[in-house]
Amino acid sequence: MDAALVTVPERLTAAAARRAIAAGTLTASALLEACLERIAARNGTVAAWAFLDPEASRARARALDAGPDQGLLHGIPFGVKDIIDTADMPAGYGSSIYVGHRPNRDGATVAGPRAAGAVLLGKTVTTEFANRKPGATRNPHDVTRTPGGSSSGSAAAVADFQVPLAIGTQTGGSVLRPAAYCGVVGFKPSFQHFGNSGVRTNTEAYDTVGVMARAVEDIALFRAAIMEIPYESPAFITAPRIAIARTAHWDMASPATRQAIEDAARAFAADGATVTEFEVPEELATLRDAHRVVCGFEAVRNYADELARSRHLVSQDWLEERVNVGEASTLAEFRAAIRQGDRCRAMMDALMAQHEFDALLTPSAPDEAPSGLAHTGNPIFNYLWTNLHMPCITLPFGTGPNSMPIGVQLVSRRHDDDRLLAVAAWAERVLAG
Amino acid sequence: MDAALVTVPERLTAAAARRAIAAGTLTASALLEACLERIAARNGTVAAWAFLDPEASRARARALDAGPDQGLLHGIPFGVKDIIDTADMPAGYGSSIYVGHRPNRDGATVAGPRAAGAVLLGKTVTTEFANRKPGATRNPHDVTRTPGGSSSGSAAAVADFQVPLAIGTQTGGSVLRPAAYCGVVGFKPSFQHFGNSGVRTNTEAYDTVGVMARAVEDIALFRAAIMEIPYESPAFITAPRIAIARTAHWDMASPATRQAIEDAARAFAADGATVTEFEVPEELATLRDAHRVVCGFEAVRNYADELARSRHLVSQDWLEERVNVGEASTLAEFRAAIRQGDRCRAMMDALMAQHEFDALLTPSAPDEAPSGLAHTGNPIFNYLWTNLHMPCITLPFGTGPNSMPIGVQLVSRRHDDDRLLAVAAWAERVLAG
Repeated sequence: MDAALVTVPERLTAAAARRAIAAGTLTASALLEACLERIAARNGTVAAWAFLDPEASRARARALDAGPDQGLLHGIPFGVKDIIDTADMPAGYGSSIYVGHRPNRDGATVAGPRAAGAVLLGKTVTTEFANRKPGATRNPHDVTRTPGGSSSGSAAAVADFQVPLAIGTQTGGSVLRPAAYCGVVGFKPSFQHFGNSGVRTNTEAYDTVGVMARAVEDIALFRAAIMEIPYESPAFITAPRIAIARTAHWDMASPATRQAIEDAARAFAADGATVTEFEVPEELATLRDAHRVVCGFEAVRNYADELARSRHLVSQDWLEERVNVGEASTLAEFRAAIRQGDRCRAMMDALMAQHEFDALLTPSAPDEAPSGLAHTGNPIFNYLWTNLHMPCITLPFGTGPNSMPIGVQLVSRRHDDDRLLAVAAWAERVLAG
Repeated sequence: MDAALVTVPERLTAAAARRAIAAGTLTASALLEACLERIAARNGTVAAWAFLDPEASRARARALDAGPDQGLLHGIPFGVKDIIDTADMPAGYGSSIYVGHRPNRDGATVAGPRAAGAVLLGKTVTTEFANRKPGATRNPHDVTRTPGGSSSGSAAAVADFQVPLAIGTQTGGSVLRPAAYCGVVGFKPSFQHFGNSGVRTNTEAYDTVGVMARAVEDIALFRAAIMEIPYESPAFITAPRIAIARTAHWDMASPATRQAIEDAARAFAADGATVTEFEVPEELATLRDAHRVVCGFEAVRNYADELARSRHLVSQDWLEERVNVGEASTLAEFRAAIRQGDRCRAMMDALMAQHEFDALLTPSAPDEAPSGLAHTGNPIFNYLWTNLHMPCITLPFGTGPNSMPIGVQLVSRRHDDDRLLAVAAWAERVLAG
């Protein structure tokens, strides 16, 4: 397969491209040019990029082709959400306040891949401050539909074969949801597993950098480069214990989404998994309000500068979603919400271990990507796991009534991302049928 | 007292200065000029400032004097550690890599006070990246001794009456220790209580912004402005339950430090407190290694840019303290260390509640500020509480054999900073006894 695909290298996974480069059947420059051609052909339609620097990318690819192997991602192009700083590109944060702003260092999750030989193409479109107000990006599967948000450009660029890897961030559902809407694999690690240095802070309590790719193997490779740890393929697992989690919001899952969960569960069971139901503790429902309070309270202080000096340049939408909530929240409410998260995390640690669950199976989003570009969809199936600091991955699995991708989400034990990747690699094979 | 002190306004507490300004017996400009004169007279000796902008401060003070009341800190000068970004001053992070670096927004803990009418004088000296390698600052009580670190300039400036309020950060013991060495009040809130936006990240798991002042009332005032919450004087408390915590490192406390703890305990008991011993759980001793591993692991990724592009400009000392440790740590060790912190925090939440402790009493530092400027002293009595995310305050209490200040530390329940401030306000009166 790899050999045939070298004629369309932009369609290769990162792992396959890496093997081709190592084998000498592909160069970093050829791969880059294929990605740049794809971008040139599609950018007017998909609009995934906030900033591109083709000449700098070309110089970097040439240098990689001329030099020794740099590591895990030698010659692999990637994109980074425009909420994370780089040393050599503008950072706009999706806000008119920051047009032309130039930071001077690479965020932790940019520096790692670069040190491992990756080629940064540019910055992908984010919603305003990685919140709700959309950027220009469209869903590559149907340009009248949202790509999801807030990591809109990263999901669209990976889905559209413009780049094999991209970085996003998630405070509620900003990696998993756009990945599901665009039909790619999206991974949000356990809280604190990737470094947040260089990320424009929304909510310290929940902000988590995540990654997108077109295969679980690529996620594992990218993760190792970002964390600067040795790469191992996801562990082999044969009979995982998987529990369907029908959270308090289950009634918001569309028929197609519910069907995807049932179908995935059946396929998993047929392939040796023990599939059961997770009895969702009622206490978890309290995290919905807790999440809103903490996001609002922290937004007010983390954007105090912008609110004091540039309030005329922020959207009404963001003020309503975050700032008004934060300004109406008391310290006592904030403190109670932080404590509630602590308690629920400890409870979930205990429950996952007690039942020996390898993963929970739950929707990645309520439905296919909704029509229209004015909204980026609902993170209702994501904020809970983000709040719980548990690692999550979405795998594309079939399509809905409008032929748009549907994702199924696997959630594993906190701080046990290796377990999640093992289950996900197994599940990817099973779901590919 | 206030009226007499208006002739030496730089000696006023922030709260007293605020009252004088509100009463019309002092102006923001007069207070600022007194502080600037003090700085001019002492800066060659104490060297607390990395950057000063007298003209901008004067313009700001004039505007405040001409306009309506801006809030809790109307006209009050403050300094901020040069590890936190501001919109209008260079940020050097104590590193030769960042000479002349100009960020373009105020960090969360700068924007809050400014919005409440405070006058930012400048950036105070930090050690390299808020780690170990000292800057130029000297202890104002004896210029042959360290002011402590890493918030060296903030502690020295407040102690030396150059500014009534200053901001620091603590990942191990970087607020409490310099405050104790310089004889001021230092407060590190519960983790996540102050916003970290704009702080050059060391270790996301522990980095906490803190504040210094010359009175507990000032700490409470400054905290309210930073958190943008209504100000209330610390609650009245009469018979707190206080437990002496002789941690695993008790043998590193000097005789003078142990004496200060015993004397404080006796004074507290005489004034109505129930004073008991805290049976320190053995498991807490595991956090020493856990802290080192997490700080190292996170340093490698958070400084990946600097390590890749500017390694020749970082100190050998920092490489040894953090980077080498991080590069030698595995993901499994990092994960275990993070989990250990989670477990110990839950355990301490339960123990503090079960015994109904209002505060633990424990040393702020091993001893008086050590001789010499090549080292900033030992954070051995601080890292534990930072790791546990518990709020801490140091109060100056007497002096050691070299007539240098000694501090006693109070540590309260996680997320219950109001309780700590209530106990501290009570303790300050008792110790002034």
